[in-house]
Amino acid sequence: MSDPIILVDPLPRTLDLIMEPAVRARLDKLGKVVLSEDRPMSDAEVDRLLPETVLLFGQTAMPRARLDRAPKLKAIFNVETNFLPNVDYQACQERNIPVLSPGSAFAAPVAEAALGMAIDLARGITEADRDFRAGHEKYGLDANTRTFRLMGAPVGLIGFGDLGRNLRDLIRPFKNRVAVYDPWLPDEIIRRHDCEPASLDEVLSTSKVIFVFAGVTSENQGFLGPREFALMQPDTAFLLMSRAAVVDFPAMLDAIRSGHIRAAIDVFPVEPVPADDPVRSLPNVILSAHRTGGTTDALFAIGSMAVADAELIMHGLPPQLCRRADPAVASRLRSKPVDIT
Amino acid sequence: MSDPIILVDPLPRTLDLIMEPAVRARLDKLGKVVLSEDRPMSDAEVDRLLPETVLLFGQTAMPRARLDRAPKLKAIFNVETNFLPNVDYQACQERNIPVLSPGSAFAAPVAEAALGMAIDLARGITEADRDFRAGHEKYGLDANTRTFRLMGAPVGLIGFGDLGRNLRDLIRPFKNRVAVYDPWLPDEIIRRHDCEPASLDEVLSTSKVIFVFAGVTSENQGFLGPREFALMQPDTAFLLMSRAAVVDFPAMLDAIRSGHIRAAIDVFPVEPVPADDPVRSLPNVILSAHRTGGTTDALFAIGSMAVADAELIMHGLPPQLCRRADPAVASRLRSKPVDIT
Amino acid sequence: MSDPIILVDPLPRTLDLIMEPAVRARLDKLGKVVLSEDRPMSDAEVDRLLPETVLLFGQTAMPRARLDRAPKLKAIFNVETNFLPNVDYQACQERNIPVLSPGSAFAAPVAEAALGMAIDLARGITEADRDFRAGHEKYGLDANTRTFRLMGAPVGLIGFGDLGRNLRDLIRPFKNRVAVYDPWLPDEIIRRHDCEPASLDEVLSTSKVIFVFAGVTSENQGFLGPREFALMQPDTAFLLMSRAAVVDFPAMLDAIRSGHIRAAIDVFPVEPVPADDPVRSLPNVILSAHRTGGTTDALFAIGSMAVADAELIMHGLPPQLCRRADPAVASRLRSKPVDIT
Amino acid sequence: MSDPIILVDPLPRTLDLIMEPAVRARLDKLGKVVLSEDRPMSDAEVDRLLPETVLLFGQTAMPRARLDRAPKLKAIFNVETNFLPNVDYQACQERNIPVLSPGSAFAAPVAEAALGMAIDLARGITEADRDFRAGHEKYGLDANTRTFRLMGAPVGLIGFGDLGRNLRDLIRPFKNRVAVYDPWLPDEIIRRHDCEPASLDEVLSTSKVIFVFAGVTSENQGFLGPREFALMQPDTAFLLMSRAAVVDFPAMLDAIRSGHIRAAIDVFPVEPVPADDPVRSLPNVILSAHRTGGTTDALFAIGSMAVADAELIMHGLPPQLCRRADPAVASRLRSKPVDIT
Repeated sequence: MSDPIILVDPLPRTLDLIMEPAVRARLDKLGKVVLSEDRPMSDAEVDRLLPETVLLFGQTAMPRARLDRAPKLKAIFNVETNFLPNVDYQACQERNIPVLSPGSAFAAPVAEAALGMAIDLARGITEADRDFRAGHEKYGLDANTRTFRLMGAPVGLIGFGDLGRNLRDLIRPFKNRVAVYDPWLPDEIIRRHDCEPASLDEVLSTSKVIFVFAGVTSENQGFLGPREFALMQPDTAFLLMSRAAVVDFPAMLDAIRSGHIRAAIDVFPVEPVPADDPVRSLPNVILSAHRTGGTTDALFAIGSMAVADAELIMHGLPPQLCRRADPAVASRLRSKPVDIT
Repeated sequence: MSDPIILVDPLPRTLDLIMEPAVRARLDKLGKVVLSEDRPMSDAEVDRLLPETVLLFGQTAMPRARLDRAPKLKAIFNVETNFLPNVDYQACQERNIPVLSPGSAFAAPVAEAALGMAIDLARGITEADRDFRAGHEKYGLDANTRTFRLMGAPVGLIGFGDLGRNLRDLIRPFKNRVAVYDPWLPDEIIRRHDCEPASLDEVLSTSKVIFVFAGVTSENQGFLGPREFALMQPDTAFLLMSRAAVVDFPAMLDAIRSGHIRAAIDVFPVEPVPADDPVRSLPNVILSAHRTGGTTDALFAIGSMAVADAELIMHGLPPQLCRRADPAVASRLRSKPVDIT
Repeated sequence: MSDPIILVDPLPRTLDLIMEPAVRARLDKLGKVVLSEDRPMSDAEVDRLLPETVLLFGQTAMPRARLDRAPKLKAIFNVETNFLPNVDYQACQERNIPVLSPGSAFAAPVAEAALGMAIDLARGITEADRDFRAGHEKYGLDANTRTFRLMGAPVGLIGFGDLGRNLRDLIRPFKNRVAVYDPWLPDEIIRRHDCEPASLDEVLSTSKVIFVFAGVTSENQGFLGPREFALMQPDTAFLLMSRAAVVDFPAMLDAIRSGHIRAAIDVFPVEPVPADDPVRSLPNVILSAHRTGGTTDALFAIGSMAVADAELIMHGLPPQLCRRADPAVASRLRSKPVDIT
Repeated sequence: MSDPIILVDPLPRTLDLIMEPAVRARLDKLGKVVLSEDRPMSDAEVDRLLPETVLLFGQTAMPRARLDRAPKLKAIFNVETNFLPNVDYQACQERNIPVLSPGSAFAAPVAEAALGMAIDLARGITEADRDFRAGHEKYGLDANTRTFRLMGAPVGLIGFGDLGRNLRDLIRPFKNRVAVYDPWLPDEIIRRHDCEPASLDEVLSTSKVIFVFAGVTSENQGFLGPREFALMQPDTAFLLMSRAAVVDFPAMLDAIRSGHIRAAIDVFPVEPVPADDPVRSLPNVILSAHRTGGTTDALFAIGSMAVADAELIMHGLPPQLCRRADPAVASRLRSKPVDIT
């Protein structure tokens, strides 16, 4: 074997799902693609290929011992997009092998849907459609006794990574004050995006629209509980976009059921949601089955971002599009692998 | 009588509905407010007041003979916001009495709701909520087989007055090509807003999202008919925000029912919509009971715009916020007076 | 004579200067163009043409008696762009003949140059170039002891018509607070452009960069005098773009000479400026010979705006691009006809 | 010694120059600051402190042997902002010690000045001021025979790092096509900023305004030579902001002197420029003595960015504001240490 090998082991993704033909063609130019997508690549196959492998696309286990077998390896692309404990991140760091995720591909579609849901909650769009179909719609002013305008409403963001920044840009024409709580970021970053750094309590108590865009770590599970929902103003629009585990779900459902807040929910503690889950008949809520991120364009963006960075790396240049795993941070993240998106 | 009189005859509006207390206080500073809002002001009362009247707020009939009785009259504010044949516009023009409407107050809330509905149609938000409640929701990629992104989708606007311009500004972050059909406007105006002037057929056949924001005139009733719906691409999102009469309604409903297009409808030929109207069970559509404009803030904006212009006029300055009736144009418009918004 | 006549009497402009060939061709389609541009059209010729004239482009005298001779006249376009007492505005108003000016054509180039000059004054660009040529330039930090950043600096605008609004849009990326003093406008207009309404004294005392974009009226000549310059903060950048007569010129020159403020001046009380005027050797100032507006594109915009509005008017539609003279306002303006721009 | 030590060895900077008091106070909270700023810290002192040092601010030599002496070291901040061969980047990488530079602090002031200079070159501001002072100014249209509008002019950027992106945002209101040549970046990054990826020749031959914002590497020295200047359109505005070494200086001066292009130059091959350098009397050029970056706010931003990232690192979080040295890339860069900025 002398051709450089590109080991592609992408499950639960498949190459067709994440690469348009033109992108796939660019990948083929970088080396000999060896692909396993009907099942995960066997250990034997992986071990056989590693000595000539230059790029790895997939979630193949890569402990230190395997890295030792891969002296030509230049980068690992996690195309499922959540960093998992399948890789020895410290060993990769020592070898200058970046472990990369194009996970920001999902940020744009999620933010777009979140804006639509925020307008919907403010203006009562889905609810009014239900009323109309049920024959008891109200017209004009009578239909606006509980509505408010997103324009100018104080907005709060919990989490200000790719998702929060995408949403922030989409709402610029609405001229909101945007308060941000993100304990992982310096105030400078938040202010550069024309937002105000704020404590969690400030965000909760002063915002009319609250977006949750927070990753789960070992430290913040369930951090939005009864106390936090009580802090919110009546009729706050609360949008849970990511991740279900940061919220105390029963506390949220209570706040919705009582009419204290209205909400949009895209992520649930158990998915699929059980058939008899009472959330299905809850008022004051827009239900979305973990569907805001998984658009066709987002999947293709995973592939095009990964291939573009692979091209840079093969030319000796630093990657620009994917996020690089930080050994210290990767160990804090509590993502579970996707099975349905 | 020597105090300047401000004749206020605002039905179907009332002053409380259109003026916050601070705005009402500014009105009181401009003269002696004489108000009739439990019933329209009587002819006798109007005729008695006119000789000392400087400003008229309302839809009082003002034929030439009455204008002759009002030598001090400086302006007429139509607070219902549609120019009707109650005023002799030509006689007002000759006397330099502007007839003014703060109707653009409704543009911002309608545009905001229209954006929410456009994202909803593109991403299937309301429909997915219905599916979830019915127990047959789909997750992730499976839920996105028919969705598309508003981001980057070609947009078409039919009508580019206040509504179209508000919408145009709201969608700037979405980086769409925006084609505009408005036969009343020069191309220069359209290009200044970073849109492309286009024929009606171009707008219909090249856009993925089409917003109707057109006033009705004696010439354009029902101009969107079967031919026009057939021109649209499959799965076009069609948003009828204003006015119902520009659309051939049965043709539109056919296009929706067949699945050729998806739609959001805020205006209907007969309102309230009859209880047994089959539109109530139509798929592929968001139903909205003429409710996108009548928000609390829009009503208050009517009052604040009118009072601000009245202040300017009393200082000898030209009005800046309300639209001035053009005698030639006012006669073309076919608005019916509102009764429910 | 039965063809509709377009009477074109454009001096001091000429048609070639204000219309590109394609625009001129559009004009020719509207009627029979009768042009006099080597000298003003003679009274006899004007009187002979008026009975069949539908559009007038130029500054031809139009007293009431002449309007009586022009029963088919639909609009008058002042292509010099300053409303002068050559027209009986009240008589035009009574006959629904709009008197129109495409004067906003100059706003964009003036605002662009004003931004360049503002950055120049803040960062010392022209001055540093002079120092470099004189052999005593300073480098790096030493060259920045008196500079400040336009980014984030408090900005004040005196006058908020087309010029001010163009400038406001150009500086959006600089994230300034923008305070506006314009006694002709309601606060709502100012706030819609994300500016703060302010008194003159507030603008003067709180801004680091002050732009003057004010028209001259019978009431505001010389309203920026010694008291007003004294109110400014040390090292304020003061940009006099329009009109020279609103400033007490000697007071301004004193404030510049003493080093209290730095300035850019595009308009002068007497133009051309006398050869021995001491302003020519003043430090702390950028000198510009009334040259920021007269760009090629601005002249062509005069023609294209006028022709586009003429097309609308010939189709029975209201003009959209030019400003319409208000009889009450036109009499207040104190413009002198241009001779050099 | 048990307190964590912050070793500060900042020459040619000093702490007062790069940290406002509030930022300095934040630094003091992170550990015991040991500072040497009248001279570089002695080797003995460095070696004595390293065992307890957690953060290093400065350009202290850090070969592998010294890193071995610093087991508690968490990060190195290069406050001069150019990565130099003073550090063993590979050894730092292996130890998870990021080497960080807040060099993007200079991007905003340079971009601001570059915009001012671009408007100046397009509209002839500095040149017109010189003419005015020399007594031969031209007025109005006569003064605009060689000017063009930045608004809408095709713009080209050579290099699209922090500088290019800052400039791109500043010129958004000017609605230019922006073509970008940057061989280190994937097209996706360029398109995300609403720019068009282009070859060098395309940028040179299709742009009316060209900004050079390129770092020097071992491969691109002098890559803009006679052929490249010949490719430019007549009267192109060429702005050399960074770095002098990427340009063949004599070729550029020829193109300026002949009137083929006009230019603004902020960086020179030898600084200070010799007293008798003929560049000092060149026409068609704005001269700037390496002064666009070194503003007070930029220096303070160096300190605040470094301290904010230090705070994150001390809390176990990844840095967010400074750029991290990539071992592979750092070795390609050819910066010389600053002495005057």
